[in-house]
Amino acid sequence: MSNLFADLSPASDVEQFDELLSRPGLRIERIVSAGQASPPGYWYDQPQGEWVLVLEGEAKLALDNEPAPRLLKKGDFVDIAPHRRHRVESTATPTVWLAVHYD
Amino acid sequence: MSNLFADLSPASDVEQFDELLSRPGLRIERIVSAGQASPPGYWYDQPQGEWVLVLEGEAKLALDNEPAPRLLKKGDFVDIAPHRRHRVESTATPTVWLAVHYD
Repeated sequence: MSNLFADLSPASDVEQFDELLSRPGLRIERIVSAGQASPPGYWYDQPQGEWVLVLEGEAKLALDNEPAPRLLKKGDFVDIAPHRRHRVESTATPTVWLAVHYD
Repeated sequence: MSNLFADLSPASDVEQFDELLSRPGLRIERIVSAGQASPPGYWYDQPQGEWVLVLEGEAKLALDNEPAPRLLKKGDFVDIAPHRRHRVESTATPTVWLAVHYD
């Protein structure tokens, strides 16, 4: 793949993950969501930092200790620090994310 | 700034650089070009790797040892290895790049 908007699968029951770059301590990934959300009550708690950018669609991202989820639209980005608990409340179909995972 | 497409300056004689994230060994940057190109005969030779993605506009990127510049359009990305010589032959107004610089 050499284009971020190529090969978008049709709406699916599962999210689509494509690794775009992998280097020591760094991983760039495309995520295509189609209405998925984190399981009820489930919070991600990741050892790596994650910088995420929404490039198509929209999503509600909840961060621990914030009063309400953030609505992320095209172009919006968030840096999620290591071990900052977060969950995805909802996604549009499709939502295209760029995620940069870093040590 | 929390949106990649916010605060795009009007067409300018200079490129616009905005740092979005800076961590040890990692820097994420937005670059907004408005017709600029690398000076004639000038080749970048960078100690860090650079993963670049075009998100608006288009650009011609020349990589050393390739017969012709690559035309990068919306969504196209390229990983430029450390010390891989490259130059920007042309950019549309505006061209919005996301650049991930890494050790």
